[in-house]
Amino acid sequence: MSGNTFGKLFTVTTFGESHGPALGAIVDGCPPGLSLTEEDLQGDLDRRKPGQSRYTTQRREADQVKILSGVFEGVTTGTSIGLLIENTDQRSKDYSNIKDTFRPSHADYTYTHKYGVRDYRGGGRSSARETAMRVAAGSIARKYLATKGILIQGYLSQLGAIKIDSVDLAEINNNPFFCPDVAKVPEMEAYMQALSKEGNSVGAEITVVATGLIPGLGEPVFDRLDAELAHALMSINAVKGVEIGDGFSVVSQKGTEHRDEMTPEGFLSNHAGGILGGISTGQDIVARIALKPTSSLRLPGRSIDKNGNAIEVVTTGRHDPCVGIRATPIAEAMMAIVLMDHLLRHRGQNTDVQVSTPVLKG
Amino acid sequence: MSGNTFGKLFTVTTFGESHGPALGAIVDGCPPGLSLTEEDLQGDLDRRKPGQSRYTTQRREADQVKILSGVFEGVTTGTSIGLLIENTDQRSKDYSNIKDTFRPSHADYTYTHKYGVRDYRGGGRSSARETAMRVAAGSIARKYLATKGILIQGYLSQLGAIKIDSVDLAEINNNPFFCPDVAKVPEMEAYMQALSKEGNSVGAEITVVATGLIPGLGEPVFDRLDAELAHALMSINAVKGVEIGDGFSVVSQKGTEHRDEMTPEGFLSNHAGGILGGISTGQDIVARIALKPTSSLRLPGRSIDKNGNAIEVVTTGRHDPCVGIRATPIAEAMMAIVLMDHLLRHRGQNTDVQVSTPVLKG
Amino acid sequence: MSGNTFGKLFTVTTFGESHGPALGAIVDGCPPGLSLTEEDLQGDLDRRKPGQSRYTTQRREADQVKILSGVFEGVTTGTSIGLLIENTDQRSKDYSNIKDTFRPSHADYTYTHKYGVRDYRGGGRSSARETAMRVAAGSIARKYLATKGILIQGYLSQLGAIKIDSVDLAEINNNPFFCPDVAKVPEMEAYMQALSKEGNSVGAEITVVATGLIPGLGEPVFDRLDAELAHALMSINAVKGVEIGDGFSVVSQKGTEHRDEMTPEGFLSNHAGGILGGISTGQDIVARIALKPTSSLRLPGRSIDKNGNAIEVVTTGRHDPCVGIRATPIAEAMMAIVLMDHLLRHRGQNTDVQVSTPVLKG
Amino acid sequence: MSGNTFGKLFTVTTFGESHGPALGAIVDGCPPGLSLTEEDLQGDLDRRKPGQSRYTTQRREADQVKILSGVFEGVTTGTSIGLLIENTDQRSKDYSNIKDTFRPSHADYTYTHKYGVRDYRGGGRSSARETAMRVAAGSIARKYLATKGILIQGYLSQLGAIKIDSVDLAEINNNPFFCPDVAKVPEMEAYMQALSKEGNSVGAEITVVATGLIPGLGEPVFDRLDAELAHALMSINAVKGVEIGDGFSVVSQKGTEHRDEMTPEGFLSNHAGGILGGISTGQDIVARIALKPTSSLRLPGRSIDKNGNAIEVVTTGRHDPCVGIRATPIAEAMMAIVLMDHLLRHRGQNTDVQVSTPVLKG
Repeated sequence: MSGNTFGKLFTVTTFGESHGPALGAIVDGCPPGLSLTEEDLQGDLDRRKPGQSRYTTQRREADQVKILSGVFEGVTTGTSIGLLIENTDQRSKDYSNIKDTFRPSHADYTYTHKYGVRDYRGGGRSSARETAMRVAAGSIARKYLATKGILIQGYLSQLGAIKIDSVDLAEINNNPFFCPDVAKVPEMEAYMQALSKEGNSVGAEITVVATGLIPGLGEPVFDRLDAELAHALMSINAVKGVEIGDGFSVVSQKGTEHRDEMTPEGFLSNHAGGILGGISTGQDIVARIALKPTSSLRLPGRSIDKNGNAIEVVTTGRHDPCVGIRATPIAEAMMAIVLMDHLLRHRGQNTDVQVSTPVLKG
Repeated sequence: MSGNTFGKLFTVTTFGESHGPALGAIVDGCPPGLSLTEEDLQGDLDRRKPGQSRYTTQRREADQVKILSGVFEGVTTGTSIGLLIENTDQRSKDYSNIKDTFRPSHADYTYTHKYGVRDYRGGGRSSARETAMRVAAGSIARKYLATKGILIQGYLSQLGAIKIDSVDLAEINNNPFFCPDVAKVPEMEAYMQALSKEGNSVGAEITVVATGLIPGLGEPVFDRLDAELAHALMSINAVKGVEIGDGFSVVSQKGTEHRDEMTPEGFLSNHAGGILGGISTGQDIVARIALKPTSSLRLPGRSIDKNGNAIEVVTTGRHDPCVGIRATPIAEAMMAIVLMDHLLRHRGQNTDVQVSTPVLKG
Repeated sequence: MSGNTFGKLFTVTTFGESHGPALGAIVDGCPPGLSLTEEDLQGDLDRRKPGQSRYTTQRREADQVKILSGVFEGVTTGTSIGLLIENTDQRSKDYSNIKDTFRPSHADYTYTHKYGVRDYRGGGRSSARETAMRVAAGSIARKYLATKGILIQGYLSQLGAIKIDSVDLAEINNNPFFCPDVAKVPEMEAYMQALSKEGNSVGAEITVVATGLIPGLGEPVFDRLDAELAHALMSINAVKGVEIGDGFSVVSQKGTEHRDEMTPEGFLSNHAGGILGGISTGQDIVARIALKPTSSLRLPGRSIDKNGNAIEVVTTGRHDPCVGIRATPIAEAMMAIVLMDHLLRHRGQNTDVQVSTPVLKG
Repeated sequence: MSGNTFGKLFTVTTFGESHGPALGAIVDGCPPGLSLTEEDLQGDLDRRKPGQSRYTTQRREADQVKILSGVFEGVTTGTSIGLLIENTDQRSKDYSNIKDTFRPSHADYTYTHKYGVRDYRGGGRSSARETAMRVAAGSIARKYLATKGILIQGYLSQLGAIKIDSVDLAEINNNPFFCPDVAKVPEMEAYMQALSKEGNSVGAEITVVATGLIPGLGEPVFDRLDAELAHALMSINAVKGVEIGDGFSVVSQKGTEHRDEMTPEGFLSNHAGGILGGISTGQDIVARIALKPTSSLRLPGRSIDKNGNAIEVVTTGRHDPCVGIRATPIAEAMMAIVLMDHLLRHRGQNTDVQVSTPVLKG
């Protein structure tokens, strides 16, 4: 498969640059008979849309998604679904000075070395704009998964050095941070204002949880569910780390502390994050990603131009002071796409399987 | 692709259970003309072999690998390479009591729910035994990469709560921990002895570094190099977290701290871990994995049997008190396989590319 | 991969129904630096377009293709290329009576059994309309292959019982049949008129030839070049047979007759059609496809409705009396896509190979 | 996927050269719970084994297949199944004179140009020996398909110019030709003796039929069932043509002659060969392949050596005067593998589908 396609049975292929005419995706393998409308997709896209909060990029985009195929009389037909979002707000002139220079910690340098040419406007294909299509495609997966009782929810678990202490899912959409701990919001707001004033940025950590799972999803050895989730989540721009369950905390845990014991009433803990041996246990799947701070800053940085000469780079256009604030719907979408693919693969191979062992509660 | 195949151009497909007659792999896509012998593969396998140290599993295995195809007169032919390791030391009787029970934090429960049946001896396909084939396959990739100047080295960076303070590559093979900080070895030995006595286990963190890279490897958007590394590394048994570069530390880093500035003399830092926009920069690639503590313990744990009744589980057979000690060659092998695949994919698409921009030193 | 994606390194993914808003494709893996414009694609599309001749479907479509990504300042960037054709002429009302009935020898019955629902307008996804995207995608491959000296030409070799006797490539675009034997054209015209009057249809055979090949393309054992060509060509609507080289004539050939002997001056024949052991020899690649007669007829046929009741079906809308007349550009496109994919795969794995054996002339 | 792997959910990966130590395969995706033994596989292998008739190669091979994984207590576990056949009869000395020469119409020349090196003994990887693994893998698919009522049968439909006139399945295993028309056997025997005496060879046509199908298998647009069958069958050594249903006869058929009308009692014909729109109709699937005459002849042929000098080539070792006689089990195996893969893919995506339309009898 190519770099722009993800999945085996439920696949997502995307195209589109930051400043091109449009972004698009083809979603293949969605079972037929699922009711689907453009409104179903628009909801998640709007959550991702810049302009929603004063801390995120001030780029006004309509981000209106169209369904061009694969849906007839309101239900999916089982054939490939084409999605399109036309780019309406690009402001090319903001990037003309970037034509021959490389912004540090962006993909400018690497794209140049890989392809020889690059669309320098707004990062071209390396821009986070392409994630809009992942969100749209992920919405299709989420809708189907919901019909099977599987739900996905993400939230901000850490902003810079500020960690949350509690999780109230109802709070997530009440603040511009997707933060589930309302007590931390004022601190986060103050911090963000200070950063904006300074012209700097900071990283974030997002947690994504899937509930309502059945045991059995995942294809050992290489397509283990955790490995595919790691792939999907690490593929999001700015992600530098992925954890499942207790993640890096397991390094210092003892075996007796880590193991999730089982009783007839259910599992006694979930250090594993819902995946054992690369296969879902039926417990909640918990994953966490680390997002690096944005590299588009008003504060000058040293770099080189395309001939290798020393230059200084300052980004004056629109940029995200904290990419993490926007990544929540994208992480949810990627988890949905992986779970969808594995649900279909599992039932493709194992539909005949009869299991007498009971399913334990999470 | 199926769950037992990894890669696009350079692919590895494996089979084999802990207590079956043999383990095997088919490696496809290796360029022709590479000199290759069974000795080339045996070296890395021996590093992984239990019995090398008193802390690892006391299971005596020959782990002699045979090359059954794809090599003629000492060089690869470009056709598929078949590898075989016959299992010689299985001690079936150690596991007969596990037939109807599920060991907590093992894959017994999930494999049962997925497949309905399972080979319960030693964990069957879920056992870490299958990683022997990954190491053998990875050796082929490592040999080819070495002809291009690309080398891979892994080491233990944390054992339980004990973190290393320095890295001296020459020390790695001088102790049973793959530890590059000789000063920490006595502390680690003492800790391991205490654990053994207690009958418990602990986790570990392994760091893997690739040097000699060229810029340009990785296939955005979904097959970004970091995403594929995350996939490959998370697919190793017991891994619960993967980091690239600064990993989860980026969450609290500011943009000015994180960015790797560039000068004509080279990059000023490597917070990115050698990958930007999903493509290699030419700098060292640095990845880190977190391995959970072994769940096969002499200390009893609560569990259920296959009918859902409460039981207590004790593992008396051979087991790894710290899986992490053995994971180093496996992580190196997986990184090699990913880099090999991407080297071929990159040159397949971009052989014609001419780049005038100089390659910066790491 | 899913059913709507073709290829490994150079991939084509398509979407779109006969009467949906648009058709689209994503082409991934095209090397960067290829000059590409919408005009390059439009040429081949216009050759395919109905209305070009009085014998083909009288459906007026603009078939204007847009490039939405992957091209910047006139050259490909190496990132995924999004293509779009908006459907402008659909005449929905022609198909409303087909809602609950199955046209014999169409995919109505099979799509219903596979998906449970179907877009019945004009055949939905099963319509030959989707081949427009293959032609557009194939044009990209053709342009790149041409830079390497590889050209592809298709022509009608048999219409009904009328076989050509000679091939003059210059004649192919001078008649509405893509017929390279000008002497046969009047006979074909007369035959077609008689068919139209009768309300019937007939099949056709198309030959496709690729010249300028290098030896070495093809990936034994399963992705042999001939096997992939067979896959690609058989995937075209209405194709029921594929031949390479002498095709079914080899059944009655003796070994001494069939073998293509080699001399220092070159091959003495090309019974193999340019492929041996699944790999190109450097000789012209010759393939042939058999297309069945159209099943949309004014002459009534027996069928059933979706409840299984006996009905009679008559198609009054627009239809192709001979599908074969339009298949030539589609077959050329599919051959181009396969050769492109294999060119990239071959150089990905075998760039280092040095061969002292000379390349024989065809 | 790579050239040595076939399939998406049910995959077969193979390795092995004609004169290497062993042939092997990994079969992945077989559902768990299927009873499977080495005897199940040996039956089909024995049908393929040379020495079965005086007309086929006089190479004595044991061809004993071993199952090395994926089966436990007599049933499949759902994990990857490793298969191995050790080569016991190689007679290397027969081929030492071929080291620097290319046999006409063999893959020697193309493998050299692709890989630079080649295992020249017996054709190396290009030898038909590797098909033994396809037969073994195909047996697994056949066993599972049989539990679903799907059976596959192949037979010789034409030997040289001798066409069969009738089909009696019971006769197929009563003669060394897999010929279902007992009246033609003496003619075939006489013809074969004449050929042997002459030192020449001839081609053959094999027909393969699958019965007991359900409608719905196949993944439009590119992975249509007929396209994947064409791929699988064309990948068999020596195949130069593939037909589905009426194949190349459709070229001269009129629409009214070709269409398979439907009534409540069932289909009235099967010109389509059981596939419409790339999806199975539930009718018998009928495919036909054309195999070229063997190129290893005692009669001298002109060729070149690896330096491009003119030489004469004579093959004195063992060879097949008619490859077609052996291809029947291989074609059956490939059809089984494709149907298996599509059965799993179809139920993976469409398990929820409810169809009220009745299934028509074939």
